[in-house]
Amino acid sequence: MKLKVKKINFAGNKRDVILSPEDALKIGQKAGERIIIKNIDAKSIEDKYWHAIVQIDYSNALVKPGEIGIFIDLLNEKEDLKEDSFVSVKPVEPPDSFTFVQKKIRGGKLTSEEITSIINDAVAGSLSKIDLAAFITAVSINGMDNDEITSLTIAEAKSGEIFDFGPNVFDKHSTGGVPGNKVSLIIVPIVAAAGLLIPKTSTRAITSPSGTADSMETLAPVSFNSDELKKIISKEKACIAWGGALDIAPADNILIEIERPLHMDPIGLMIPSILAKKLSMGVKKLVLDIPVGQGTKFPKVEDGHQFALRFKEIAKKVGIQAECALTLAHQPIGHTVGPAIEAMEALNLLIDYSAGPNSLIEKSTSLAGILLEMGGKAERGQGQTLAKEILRSGKAYEKMRGIIETQGGNPDIKPSDIKLGPYKKEFYSSKSGHITEVNNAIINKIAKAAGCPGSKTAGVELFKKQGARITEGDLIFRIYSDSQSKLKKAEKIYNSTGGPIILGGMMIERI
Amino acid sequence: MKLKVKKINFAGNKRDVILSPEDALKIGQKAGERIIIKNIDAKSIEDKYWHAIVQIDYSNALVKPGEIGIFIDLLNEKEDLKEDSFVSVKPVEPPDSFTFVQKKIRGGKLTSEEITSIINDAVAGSLSKIDLAAFITAVSINGMDNDEITSLTIAEAKSGEIFDFGPNVFDKHSTGGVPGNKVSLIIVPIVAAAGLLIPKTSTRAITSPSGTADSMETLAPVSFNSDELKKIISKEKACIAWGGALDIAPADNILIEIERPLHMDPIGLMIPSILAKKLSMGVKKLVLDIPVGQGTKFPKVEDGHQFALRFKEIAKKVGIQAECALTLAHQPIGHTVGPAIEAMEALNLLIDYSAGPNSLIEKSTSLAGILLEMGGKAERGQGQTLAKEILRSGKAYEKMRGIIETQGGNPDIKPSDIKLGPYKKEFYSSKSGHITEVNNAIINKIAKAAGCPGSKTAGVELFKKQGARITEGDLIFRIYSDSQSKLKKAEKIYNSTGGPIILGGMMIERI
Repeated sequence: MKLKVKKINFAGNKRDVILSPEDALKIGQKAGERIIIKNIDAKSIEDKYWHAIVQIDYSNALVKPGEIGIFIDLLNEKEDLKEDSFVSVKPVEPPDSFTFVQKKIRGGKLTSEEITSIINDAVAGSLSKIDLAAFITAVSINGMDNDEITSLTIAEAKSGEIFDFGPNVFDKHSTGGVPGNKVSLIIVPIVAAAGLLIPKTSTRAITSPSGTADSMETLAPVSFNSDELKKIISKEKACIAWGGALDIAPADNILIEIERPLHMDPIGLMIPSILAKKLSMGVKKLVLDIPVGQGTKFPKVEDGHQFALRFKEIAKKVGIQAECALTLAHQPIGHTVGPAIEAMEALNLLIDYSAGPNSLIEKSTSLAGILLEMGGKAERGQGQTLAKEILRSGKAYEKMRGIIETQGGNPDIKPSDIKLGPYKKEFYSSKSGHITEVNNAIINKIAKAAGCPGSKTAGVELFKKQGARITEGDLIFRIYSDSQSKLKKAEKIYNSTGGPIILGGMMIERI
Repeated sequence: MKLKVKKINFAGNKRDVILSPEDALKIGQKAGERIIIKNIDAKSIEDKYWHAIVQIDYSNALVKPGEIGIFIDLLNEKEDLKEDSFVSVKPVEPPDSFTFVQKKIRGGKLTSEEITSIINDAVAGSLSKIDLAAFITAVSINGMDNDEITSLTIAEAKSGEIFDFGPNVFDKHSTGGVPGNKVSLIIVPIVAAAGLLIPKTSTRAITSPSGTADSMETLAPVSFNSDELKKIISKEKACIAWGGALDIAPADNILIEIERPLHMDPIGLMIPSILAKKLSMGVKKLVLDIPVGQGTKFPKVEDGHQFALRFKEIAKKVGIQAECALTLAHQPIGHTVGPAIEAMEALNLLIDYSAGPNSLIEKSTSLAGILLEMGGKAERGQGQTLAKEILRSGKAYEKMRGIIETQGGNPDIKPSDIKLGPYKKEFYSSKSGHITEVNNAIINKIAKAAGCPGSKTAGVELFKKQGARITEGDLIFRIYSDSQSKLKKAEKIYNSTGGPIILGGMMIERI
C-alpha cells in the first residue's frame, strides 16, 4: 500500500508511525503490530527499508486515510524522506527477538545470541516498550542465570562506544540508597594521586536528592563528548564526568526507561546495568560499594552478601576484577545532602583533613584503600592507611584541583565560593537526649521538597548524628532552598514528621 | 509548578502529558512517572484535578520550559481547559493499583478489591500501558486462581454498560481458530425461531480472515448504540451485532490492546474476556464452542477439556450456566472463508437445507441443540434433532429475514445478490487421489493476502475437503479478491505452498 508522508510535529517514539484505522485494517495490522516501510527515493539501504510499529489515530485529527504519520525526529534523521512524498508499507511479523522475549516469559534460558538479538532490537526500536516491559517483568519473575547475565552485560556494552584506556583501569561504583554519599569526590582524587587511572563516570540523581555528577557540576563542567573525555583522562589519568553525555551502553538506558516507572530493578538487569557501563569505560578493576539496610536495595545484610558474590563472579566472566564492600547505610555519610552542599563538604575535607567529617573520611579511604591494594600501591590491609596519608598530605586535593581545571572549572574554588540557598531555615532541639536514630527517608523527603536535585543550591545539613548527645536548644538541622515556597514545603515535612533526628529517652505515649 | 497549556494536535494517550526535560527535572519526575494536574478554572471536581503520566520532549519541538503539552482528545473532553491557560502540577506516587500489579508480579494472590482497583485504573488511564504489560506478563507467568478470574470477570463487566434482558437470555461463543466458522449465522436464527432470547454480539476478525460481525455486515448493518440494540432485541428476541460499537466491558478492550501485540492470551485473561462480555449482555445460559487441534488455542484435546471444566466453574460463579463443546478444527467449516462468501454460504443453507454443506449443518445444529435443551425446548439428547427441524422447516430462515430487516438490511437478499471478487482465480488438481489433509494455515494466509477481512468481497472457496476423491483436472480451489495485485499475491502463496489441499498417495520425493 502506498501512503503519503505526513509530518508529526511531536517528539514521539521514532519507531512508531501513525495510520488511519481504515488503512490499518486494509494492511491487516492493529495498534502495536509491525510494518515494513519502503522509501524508493532513499539512497542507502538503511534509509530505504525500515520496520515501524503501527499506532492508530482513531480521531482522524492527525492522519487521514492514505496518509502515514511519521514523527519529526525520524524525518530529521532520514534525509531522503520528505513530507508529502510517498512510501509503501506492508505488514511484517515480529522480529526473532520477540520470540526470545516469549521464551523468557515461558521460563526458558536464553542463549547469548538470543540476548544479543533482544538488545539489538531494543536499540533499533523494533521491540516496542510493551515488548520490553514484558521482557523485564519476565526477568523479574523467572530470573536469569549467570550465563544469561553475562551475555546481557556484554550485549549492553556492545550497544554503544567502548573506550580503551589500557590494561590498568580502576573504578568505584555504588549500588546506592544512602544519602549524602559524596565519597567519589574523595576517592577519585586519592586513587589518581597514587598514580592509578580512574575514569569515573556517574549518573545524575534518579530518585535521590543528589548524584555524584550533580555535585561535581558545582565545581566544574561534567558533560563531555568522547573526544573531550579522552583528552581529560590522558592529561589527568582521572575524571569525574556525567555518563549520560556519552554513548556508553545505550541499551541499558532503554531498559532503565521501562524499569523505572515499573519500580523494578531485578538482579538480572541490575548487574548488567553496572558492569556494561564499566566495560564500556574499559574498566579492569572495580570496587563496589554495597550499602545495606533499610532504604537501600538490600534491606538484609545477607541479600547484599549474596549479591556481592554473584556480582564478583559475573564481573570475572566479563574480564573485570571486582571487590565488594558492604557498608552501613543507617544515616547519611557526612553531614550534608544536596548537590552543592555535598561538593562543599567534600572540598572542605580535601583541603583540610582535620575538618572531617569522620564518616566521610572512613568510608572514602576504606574504598579507596581497596583500589590501592588492587593496584599494587599498598599491601593487603594497608590500603586505607595509604589512602588516609594521600588525603591528609594534600596530594588528593592537588589532584582534585587538576581534575577541576582540566574539566574546565576554577581550581582555586573555595568551599565558601559555593552558593547555597539563598533561603534557609534552622531547627533547634526541643529536648535533651542522645540521638538514637537518623531517618534517611525523612531527610530525602525534605531535601527533595527543598528543590534537590533540580536546584543545585538546595540541600540539608545535619549538625549531629547517631550517638551524639543533644541539649535542648542545640542547632540540629538546617534546610537550604532556592525558593521561599519550596522552603515552606520542606519545613512542613520537618514539622509534620518531627524531623529526621530522633532522640532516645523520650516518652512516646503515657496512658 | 505553574505551566502553560499547549495543545498537542495528536491523538495520543489522553492520560499522557508532555513536559520539557527542564520542568520534569524540577518536578522530580521522569518519563512514565505521574503528576497530578490542577485546573483552578474548572467547575467540576473531576475537571479540576486529574492524574497524568509524564512524557518528556527531549527535542524541544513540542513544548518549551514553562509549557505542558496536552493531547487534543483531552482538551476536547475537558471544556474548562483552554490552550494558553495555566495549570499547576505536582508529582504523585503511583496509585494503589500499581502496588497490586507488583503483588501479582511477586506471585501473590489478588483480592477482589485489588483486581477491581487495577481494572478501574486501567480504564481511568492511571495505569500506563507499560504497567498493564507488566500485569499481563505476570498473569501469564504466575497464573490466576478461580477466585481471581471470577473477580476479574466481574470487574471487567462493571467497567461498562450492563444490559438486562430478563432471566432467560441465551448465547453462543467460540474460542476460535477454525476458518469459515460461520455457525452463528445459523445458530442464532434457529434458537430465536424456537422462542429463546439470544442477543448475539460478536467481534470483527482480529487475526482471522473473517469474524461473524464482518460476515453479517454484508447482509445488514451491525453497528448499533445501546438504545438501538434494545429496540432490535425487544422486537426480534435476537440480534447479530458488532460488540465493538457498544460500551460493554471496555476494560477488556484495554487489556486486549496490550495482549494482542504481545501474542499473549493467558487463561486468566481469556475467561474473563469471554464472560465479562456475556455478563454485560445479561446472558444467563451459554454454549461455548471450543475448537481443538492445530492452529487453535488448544492444540491438545486435553487442554481444551481442562479449559472447559474451568470455564464452566467460573461461569457458574458469575451466574452463567455454561455448557462447552469441544469441536473439530482440522479443516474449515463448510467450503468458504471470507466475510461475504461466508454470509452467502450461510444464507444458502438457511434458504435450502439440501444445499448443505454437511459440516455447517452438523456443527450449527449440535451447538444450537445444546441451547434448545438448556432452554427446555428439547429433552436432553433431542436438541440437535429439533434444531435440524427448525432449520429444514424454513423457520430459521424466516427468523433471519426478521433479524436482517430489523437491523436495517434487505430481508429479500439472495445469495446471488452478495458481491464477491471481482477478481478471481481457479485452481485445478494436477493429480488424482484422496484428500488426506486441508491446511488451515495456508487457507488463512491466502484469504488474508486476497484482502480479507479488510475487503469484504475477498475470500476463498474449497470445492473438496478431507476424504474426498479427486481426479486430475478437478476444480479444487478458488480465490476472490478486490484487487488484481492482491490476487497475484494470494496466487503466489498458493503456488509456493502447493495450496491447502493435500492429496494422499502422492510421492513427495524420489532420489
